[in-house]
Amino acid sequence: MEVGNNMKRVDARGKVSGQALYTQDMMNDHMLSAKVVHSTIANGLVRSFDLKEALAVPGVIGIYTCFDVPDINFGTPGHPWSVEEAHQDVRDRHLLNRRVRCYGDDIAAVIAEDPVAAGKAAGLVKVDYEEYEPLVSVDDALRPGAPLMHEEYPGNILKETGFTVGEGSYEQAAGSEEDLITFEQTYQTQRVQHCHMELPVSYAWQDTNGKITVVTSTQIPHIVRRVVGQALGIPWGSVRVIKPYIGGGFGNKQEVLYEPLNAWLSLQAGGRPVRLELSREETFWATRIRHAIRFHIKAAVRPDGRLIARSVDILSNQGGYASHGHAIAANASNMFKQLYQDEKVLESHAMTVYTSTASGGAMRGYGIPQADFASECLMDDLAARLGMDPIAFRKINCVKAGWTDPHLGFSFNSYGLVKCMDLGREKMHWDQKRREYAHQTGPLRRGIGMAIFIYKVGVYPISLETASCRMTLNQDGSVQLSMGATEIGQGADTVFTQMASESVGITADRIYINSTQDTDTSPFDTGAYASRQTYVSGKAIKKTGAVFKGRILDYAGEMLSRPADQLDLIDNNIVDKADGRRLLAMSDLAETAQYSLTHSVHITAEETSQCKENTFASGACFAEVEVDIPMGKVKILRIMNVHDSGRLINPQLAAAQVHGGMSMGLGYALSEELQYDKNGKPLNGNLLDYKLPTSMDTPDLEAEFVQLDDPTAPFGNKALGEPPAIPVAPAVRNAVLQATGIAFNELPMDPQRLIAAFKKHGLLPETEQ
Amino acid sequence: MEVGNNMKRVDARGKVSGQALYTQDMMNDHMLSAKVVHSTIANGLVRSFDLKEALAVPGVIGIYTCFDVPDINFGTPGHPWSVEEAHQDVRDRHLLNRRVRCYGDDIAAVIAEDPVAAGKAAGLVKVDYEEYEPLVSVDDALRPGAPLMHEEYPGNILKETGFTVGEGSYEQAAGSEEDLITFEQTYQTQRVQHCHMELPVSYAWQDTNGKITVVTSTQIPHIVRRVVGQALGIPWGSVRVIKPYIGGGFGNKQEVLYEPLNAWLSLQAGGRPVRLELSREETFWATRIRHAIRFHIKAAVRPDGRLIARSVDILSNQGGYASHGHAIAANASNMFKQLYQDEKVLESHAMTVYTSTASGGAMRGYGIPQADFASECLMDDLAARLGMDPIAFRKINCVKAGWTDPHLGFSFNSYGLVKCMDLGREKMHWDQKRREYAHQTGPLRRGIGMAIFIYKVGVYPISLETASCRMTLNQDGSVQLSMGATEIGQGADTVFTQMASESVGITADRIYINSTQDTDTSPFDTGAYASRQTYVSGKAIKKTGAVFKGRILDYAGEMLSRPADQLDLIDNNIVDKADGRRLLAMSDLAETAQYSLTHSVHITAEETSQCKENTFASGACFAEVEVDIPMGKVKILRIMNVHDSGRLINPQLAAAQVHGGMSMGLGYALSEELQYDKNGKPLNGNLLDYKLPTSMDTPDLEAEFVQLDDPTAPFGNKALGEPPAIPVAPAVRNAVLQATGIAFNELPMDPQRLIAAFKKHGLLPETEQ
Repeated sequence: MEVGNNMKRVDARGKVSGQALYTQDMMNDHMLSAKVVHSTIANGLVRSFDLKEALAVPGVIGIYTCFDVPDINFGTPGHPWSVEEAHQDVRDRHLLNRRVRCYGDDIAAVIAEDPVAAGKAAGLVKVDYEEYEPLVSVDDALRPGAPLMHEEYPGNILKETGFTVGEGSYEQAAGSEEDLITFEQTYQTQRVQHCHMELPVSYAWQDTNGKITVVTSTQIPHIVRRVVGQALGIPWGSVRVIKPYIGGGFGNKQEVLYEPLNAWLSLQAGGRPVRLELSREETFWATRIRHAIRFHIKAAVRPDGRLIARSVDILSNQGGYASHGHAIAANASNMFKQLYQDEKVLESHAMTVYTSTASGGAMRGYGIPQADFASECLMDDLAARLGMDPIAFRKINCVKAGWTDPHLGFSFNSYGLVKCMDLGREKMHWDQKRREYAHQTGPLRRGIGMAIFIYKVGVYPISLETASCRMTLNQDGSVQLSMGATEIGQGADTVFTQMASESVGITADRIYINSTQDTDTSPFDTGAYASRQTYVSGKAIKKTGAVFKGRILDYAGEMLSRPADQLDLIDNNIVDKADGRRLLAMSDLAETAQYSLTHSVHITAEETSQCKENTFASGACFAEVEVDIPMGKVKILRIMNVHDSGRLINPQLAAAQVHGGMSMGLGYALSEELQYDKNGKPLNGNLLDYKLPTSMDTPDLEAEFVQLDDPTAPFGNKALGEPPAIPVAPAVRNAVLQATGIAFNELPMDPQRLIAAFKKHGLLPETEQ
Repeated sequence: MEVGNNMKRVDARGKVSGQALYTQDMMNDHMLSAKVVHSTIANGLVRSFDLKEALAVPGVIGIYTCFDVPDINFGTPGHPWSVEEAHQDVRDRHLLNRRVRCYGDDIAAVIAEDPVAAGKAAGLVKVDYEEYEPLVSVDDALRPGAPLMHEEYPGNILKETGFTVGEGSYEQAAGSEEDLITFEQTYQTQRVQHCHMELPVSYAWQDTNGKITVVTSTQIPHIVRRVVGQALGIPWGSVRVIKPYIGGGFGNKQEVLYEPLNAWLSLQAGGRPVRLELSREETFWATRIRHAIRFHIKAAVRPDGRLIARSVDILSNQGGYASHGHAIAANASNMFKQLYQDEKVLESHAMTVYTSTASGGAMRGYGIPQADFASECLMDDLAARLGMDPIAFRKINCVKAGWTDPHLGFSFNSYGLVKCMDLGREKMHWDQKRREYAHQTGPLRRGIGMAIFIYKVGVYPISLETASCRMTLNQDGSVQLSMGATEIGQGADTVFTQMASESVGITADRIYINSTQDTDTSPFDTGAYASRQTYVSGKAIKKTGAVFKGRILDYAGEMLSRPADQLDLIDNNIVDKADGRRLLAMSDLAETAQYSLTHSVHITAEETSQCKENTFASGACFAEVEVDIPMGKVKILRIMNVHDSGRLINPQLAAAQVHGGMSMGLGYALSEELQYDKNGKPLNGNLLDYKLPTSMDTPDLEAEFVQLDDPTAPFGNKALGEPPAIPVAPAVRNAVLQATGIAFNELPMDPQRLIAAFKKHGLLPETEQ
């Protein structure tokens, strides 16, 4: 049984020794270098360029501007694509844009013999702009008379949607009983950036068969192939994408941002290899960020703690380009109906608004970290109003086992949410601490808080879920495992190997996974996002494994002159199903299958699994904090995530996944924010000024699990990629609420916000000290 | 119909532009460099090394000698392998050999930071040898008391075999009729080298998953995998082999000579990448050559021209290592029973003898160029004795349509041999020229000659014939074609593409073949040798194409709500089988199959074809020459090959294949010979002294074909890779015979041999001029 073991990462050796090849490792000095020229205004139009000085830089091969690129609009998000137009993405950009929609927009590109020349020339490109009013906030953009970011979107509204669960309206429900307590609050999340270690990097060339080939640091090689084809207006099959090892993505590499431009630039250079590397600064301005979302919520609750009704109004700052479009705000809105069910009604309205700042895209949680912050602040605010224990209050109202989403149509099949709350409560000594910290005074004040969350696994039924897997038998009885699903640092290759081992009956040490995806040779999969791979791609492994094992047993049956259904494959041996007796070693079978003069066959299997079911993961975070009032600092004394993610394929890797997510959640809670000035220019788009937590800022991170087999899952497993980042910020906020009595409704809770609030609430004197 | 078209080579663009990557193009300066230390004696034993000076060279990482390598004997030939021990190869070498068996034997290897340091250190390694008598010729080796090259092979005889076709003995048959004419002659072929443009080159490293990976210029990646595994004593699945584009092999890269050492050296360097490149000189001494074979033949013929009996005694000079073993001499001996059938009896005896020179291995024709030289010299010698026209004489005795080999059990299914003779006779104005040149005198004498040949396609039933193919449908309706069979310059990728197009119904421009073989991801195939690929691997394409097309039509049936058997796929469209009406474009089908929310499937097929049938190719060469008696030179006035190779997949590529083979045949006939001195040291192991024909030496080469569909072939096609090189030398020799009346029975017919013969026969005065 390989599933459930703490198998060492299959890429451990390579990553520790430096042998694992990343995109940059595969580049060479003979390649040309490209550098993008970015706009220095936030909103406007390029009138003209003066390229004279730039072209004079020695080594410059060519400069291409927004006036040179094909007149093709395309969309960049890493969605699966669909043949139905309603499921297709907004196409709102060119390879290079004349209409500038954010600081750092891509307006031209230099190709030069080396990166120094390219960078120098890019800096010498002179641009004449027509400038429009910068739209930094959603309020700026919604103001009547604001310039339109895209002519086709009046009022700068990309999309708005609404739904009601239950009968009537919130107002009717809130007035339907005399003693209902009503509450209204606005919660605001900030812009943050993924800050993956490896910067966006790719290189492209036209191969001998005319194919444009892109080697790139991406989560979604097969989608990159499609988008490059669409952006260049060439058949998708004439594009080849190769994904080496990658150093993190967190959703930012679930978007096809620079691969199309890189491919096109190579074609301008006659197909010569061209490399395109972004700096950290460019990554901040010109790639994707997590949406800043404002939630305006009204709630009505009975004194006994039953939630009667809510009205949730969501306003999402999209930035200049649609990217994933309204999908993230819509996902955020869905969470409200999923995590708690109001007795009477939930009204939801969500709007995504174009502004002239960096575009929001996918980032670990896809709207849920924002929604969960609002939701879990609200729950503690309501519990506080009612004088109830926050856990008790949540247990009354939270989703129950077997609940079915009324719109999506699937159920919470394996339900561990309450168990997560109970386990955290016990492990964190919640009741004792909660009492102990009830009345804090003085400069250092302690509190304990928690938050829960729900997370839909993958994207079914909203989008397509399809995954393929290929297994081939090596001549020594070992197996090559090929996936379209991608290792992006999270350990996917290791758990896929374990799953294949479990499915086939060959030990994991005899399974070799091909880590590099290559759209010319790898099976199809849409890639790493939505915490879908272990669930969706895992089904492809299970299905392929069964077919593959069947073919092995058929051959064994031939060799042993016995019916295949009397045989089994366990730990690299064909055994008698009846008594477990070892009959034949896989190494002998494999050698014979390959080389027999009587019956030679290259045993292999490839199957597509289209996933048409789904389930929910859930969990909780518990945070114990000490707030330094004069310093405006939150110290994490203890923090624990408890996850209901089904059966764990590899507990150590699962814990590591949780640790990473919690660390990201702490940055989101306490320090990270990409700030803009009023002209729409980023103020802190670099790792000096942007406060990403370091290891020095990070406390011990505790991960616990409630393992329940999910019946819809291939191995009982559920999502664990994104969930750990979700509940951390509200848990910390709720702990600070207990410690200080102050409800922080905006993220991050950085010293500036804390000091301001402490002054406002009289914990610190108003005057400067 | 794509088969039969002159489709442009799929790799034309890459090879013309320089974008096609060869092994050396993929190396970088960070790799370590290895250099092999070769023995400077031909026969002996390494007593000890003095490495002091060599180790002192700056940049040297390590020096490994024959005393350091694993005590594992392995064989290097590119045979398919078999689970039956009788089919396995002779294992007679180590990674580095202490027992020196030829000049240039591998006795040590240097690893250094760069190739200059490696080369310098290799030159400073001092060796103390125990020397044995060099055995240059088979006579040296067979002499009683000669030292044994391998203790297990008494008399230095690697193997001897014999067979008799018919009843009784040659002597009985030769004495069975009164007026039989008997004839006895010895024919001798020389050592030649393949002289592929790209030298043997590889690099190896241990990958992140522990696999040892070798990128190498080879014809047989899957066999390299096996042999590296065997030589290092590690599981075959833990070896990965990648074959980029390669610059020719001609059989020399059907042997696994330096990949195992390269892999082992990388492991000694902690898995760091190590490159190993051979020089042209090393390629001559230390890789493989075509066997020098001596044929002693007796023949009895009736005055009317009927061949009554032959006795053929074959003595093959193997060199120091078994390589392909006795297989080449055995193949040569088989040709005698196949090309002509004696009325009474054919006695054959073949012996392969170890000597202390470079080892004979596979080289374009695998024994047949040698056998055909002997056979076709004999036929003209007999015809001359009888005063018959050589073609008329051959027609009486040559193999007839439908003949079945009594030992191999398969038949000459599509018979074009006589048609080839007739076509060449007509095109070359044979009868007229033959008369015209009948009585030549003076310093310039003309003649016309011809030779025929037969060639068994592939290796069935002697060895395993197995091949796999994979097709996957891209999202735009184009197809990825993956083969285990290899492009080695001969155009395989192009004809595979045409075959796939024909099989599936998708135009060849929409089929992308993966040219690089990678044992981790490519389907299995034993590789490029024995002119097997279009026949054997072509069957895999046809089989896979049928399955793949079936799956496409099934999906089309779903989309169109029609039974799949009413549909066909023609030129990228699903059509109504009944009336040919276009119903659906493949691009639409492919996009739907991939992205449908209802039924998404990654359409793919992979099939193994085990080939258990075989056939013969045949043909003729016609040469018209002018011999310059005083200069001792043969000038080719006109030369034509006529081939019975079944249906041509790509006539232009077929003609190019014939041109290359004829050029090689002319070098074999007239100038090439690797010579050894009496100490067993090569005299001309370089391209200055070894007389490879240049373009200046090459006349216009004419290629004609008799196209008959072979019923056992996937597309009516038969072997054409090796055949063109076979009949050229005897055709030229027979033309020289007509021109001068002198029978040259040794190759090459270079000026030295010609002048000597002319003196001996009185055409030139005996004294020096």
